[in-house]
Amino acid sequence: MKKRVFKANIALPKQGLIKLTWGNVSEINRELGVIVIKPSGVSYETMREEDMVVIDLDGHSLERDNLKPSSDLATHIVLYKHFQDVNAIVHTHSTNAVKWAQARRDIPAYGTTHADTFCGAVPCTRQLTQAEIEENYELETGNVIVETFTQRKLDPLECPAVIVYGHGPFTWGETTEVAVQNSIVLEEVADMAFGTEQLNSNIDTIDQYLLDKHYYRKHGASSYYGQN
Amino acid sequence: MKKRVFKANIALPKQGLIKLTWGNVSEINRELGVIVIKPSGVSYETMREEDMVVIDLDGHSLERDNLKPSSDLATHIVLYKHFQDVNAIVHTHSTNAVKWAQARRDIPAYGTTHADTFCGAVPCTRQLTQAEIEENYELETGNVIVETFTQRKLDPLECPAVIVYGHGPFTWGETTEVAVQNSIVLEEVADMAFGTEQLNSNIDTIDQYLLDKHYYRKHGASSYYGQN
Amino acid sequence: MKKRVFKANIALPKQGLIKLTWGNVSEINRELGVIVIKPSGVSYETMREEDMVVIDLDGHSLERDNLKPSSDLATHIVLYKHFQDVNAIVHTHSTNAVKWAQARRDIPAYGTTHADTFCGAVPCTRQLTQAEIEENYELETGNVIVETFTQRKLDPLECPAVIVYGHGPFTWGETTEVAVQNSIVLEEVADMAFGTEQLNSNIDTIDQYLLDKHYYRKHGASSYYGQN
Amino acid sequence: MKKRVFKANIALPKQGLIKLTWGNVSEINRELGVIVIKPSGVSYETMREEDMVVIDLDGHSLERDNLKPSSDLATHIVLYKHFQDVNAIVHTHSTNAVKWAQARRDIPAYGTTHADTFCGAVPCTRQLTQAEIEENYELETGNVIVETFTQRKLDPLECPAVIVYGHGPFTWGETTEVAVQNSIVLEEVADMAFGTEQLNSNIDTIDQYLLDKHYYRKHGASSYYGQN
Repeated sequence: MKKRVFKANIALPKQGLIKLTWGNVSEINRELGVIVIKPSGVSYETMREEDMVVIDLDGHSLERDNLKPSSDLATHIVLYKHFQDVNAIVHTHSTNAVKWAQARRDIPAYGTTHADTFCGAVPCTRQLTQAEIEENYELETGNVIVETFTQRKLDPLECPAVIVYGHGPFTWGETTEVAVQNSIVLEEVADMAFGTEQLNSNIDTIDQYLLDKHYYRKHGASSYYGQN
Repeated sequence: MKKRVFKANIALPKQGLIKLTWGNVSEINRELGVIVIKPSGVSYETMREEDMVVIDLDGHSLERDNLKPSSDLATHIVLYKHFQDVNAIVHTHSTNAVKWAQARRDIPAYGTTHADTFCGAVPCTRQLTQAEIEENYELETGNVIVETFTQRKLDPLECPAVIVYGHGPFTWGETTEVAVQNSIVLEEVADMAFGTEQLNSNIDTIDQYLLDKHYYRKHGASSYYGQN
Repeated sequence: MKKRVFKANIALPKQGLIKLTWGNVSEINRELGVIVIKPSGVSYETMREEDMVVIDLDGHSLERDNLKPSSDLATHIVLYKHFQDVNAIVHTHSTNAVKWAQARRDIPAYGTTHADTFCGAVPCTRQLTQAEIEENYELETGNVIVETFTQRKLDPLECPAVIVYGHGPFTWGETTEVAVQNSIVLEEVADMAFGTEQLNSNIDTIDQYLLDKHYYRKHGASSYYGQN
Repeated sequence: MKKRVFKANIALPKQGLIKLTWGNVSEINRELGVIVIKPSGVSYETMREEDMVVIDLDGHSLERDNLKPSSDLATHIVLYKHFQDVNAIVHTHSTNAVKWAQARRDIPAYGTTHADTFCGAVPCTRQLTQAEIEENYELETGNVIVETFTQRKLDPLECPAVIVYGHGPFTWGETTEVAVQNSIVLEEVADMAFGTEQLNSNIDTIDQYLLDKHYYRKHGASSYYGQN
């Protein structure tokens, strides 16, 4: 599990999703109640598999010589508690997704590249209040993500990504591999959507039936993409 | 033939035209009635030459232990049936070409980089209807491409590319190598045309005589580019 | 010290911040009154550790066979004299930061990626006068940076970067490693801010409390990011 | 000489200035009246030093088993005849420079990155007439470049680049190394100028005295950049 989390973390800069130490991946084993997450502020070049931090769902350290966990741990824990089918979470500051987060805009579903992974627009959260930021920032970041999905009646597995206003993206999945892939897709569709609007400022999002066709071609009982 | 198709497929991510498993290359041997195509949803990192799928023009498997072919196979077959001089087809979700597809716009011929390969604008198809999408999506994708070329009286070899509305590009050629090159060119001219419009919103496409000069400098009986 | 400065200099093209010989890193040892800086116009491919130039705070050479120091040395010296906590300076022509410098605009703080490093907008200097340019260009470049920080009451360590109008960015830090990191961050947030404005032309900068939260999460007495 | 031209040619795709076989470098030895140029349409991956083509100023082959020279040879010859101090020419379809060429716009001097190499705007030629294109296209491309420099009273060494309308850039220099560097700079400043206008649509070009300062800091009798 440490190995998977380590490999997923070092995949982020290789994929161009991360500069310096911005970003983190965690994975949960729900039976054991154990979370493994990247340590805080450690360089990707010197980070080792054994540096991954092991904690429980209350954020307590489960190993004697644990490093400090990622400062975003509290956000991950909130998401694991509310999104029961999510077993891995990825946070990045990938350039194009951040542009949308800073512009305070959902990423619209303009095409099938988007629809293959996200069954609708990727939502941007509301702004956190001053009290939320000053009192319990990382926890409230998790809460505002959950609030966004609850208010909009979104299924976290059908839309496995969010962008936090003024901050950046979180993606997730049933496995760590899929959670990382979703970060790659999100960054790509953020770029595509940006260009689409520049080329045609009146463009509409794609119709629901094309969205559904592509999403369910790859996901769910009647999917027919891949080798299974 | 498997080797060529395999090498062409793995060239796509190397050229930056593909992320994850998005995209596929096929080649046809018209004498034998055999098509070789990428398997569906297989990672480019683990894919092997022997994984290429061999089928006939009805989509029937010609090898016992074939993997499932690319989900876009039906699109390829329609194109092979209607475009008789086309022997290889490439599908990607390359970023800049997708932007135009999502913006529902033809890619205009703004310069000689475009004209060297495409003898006019690269067309964007109409939107598929709900019935077309729900009943036989990949087949109808092929049909709408053929419809676009028929209605606009385009020669598939003089304009060896299309962008499917809301989806992305298909390119082709007499050989697999040329079909892949055409994907590279399409992605590049999509970027150039985007920037051209940003720099001058009143710009016209280049004149037909410059378009013809560049196209026929490289193609046809009086071409004088290259070593032949 | 030469080794650190050499490694920092060759990191710049690797990070995509520099083309050809554009850019330079220097470091100061304040106790010894010694500055080490990149030589002028030497190719990054052939530059060696021993080519680093050693001078004092008056710009006098301290080694017999010194190469000529970077032509921007006078700028570095002014900054070292006025910014007492700064021990390393980096100058680049990184693409996105230069765009803002040429557009004569501060880089606004649109998100937490920016706030993690820069406690507010990164300022753009005023234009130099003809007299300043013709008489003592590099010295006056340093002076206009200091003037900008003085007039705006900015703390050089809380905003460890500036963009010089029509020219490009300088960043700095208490260590050479941090000064280089600040150049990486500056280039990235310059790109993000550009895209943010394209996506939403009415967007505001983030609130001061979010800016403060992120900045002081990483910096100062109550920081809690990283392993210390 | 073949070696230098070969190395310069293969530097172009490495620098990201060239895709496929788009582009060519030539060098002239004015004492011997000999030009060495890239062969036409040969892949950069298989091209060898001995494939470089040797011709005289009338375009006649000087070696028995010469390959066909670049189809743009006639353009190079016109430039060598009129620009007496130019000893090497580079042609690319680099993405950002082509955007300006297709937008039919000079690249304005918005900053010192530009001024370090180009003493003013990089000019865009007028459109070629139908007769010029159909009768002697490559020769007339050279003529329109010379016409542009003559009409605007530009010195080819002070502005060692042009963009040909609807086509793309040519750069040159006293040496092959400098001519290639000028292509790198041109592509970079084309990108910077694009972004500058997006960030500030009212921006002016930099003042002549800043332009002169930077240009003559690196060029001419009173230059003080570099080790000489």
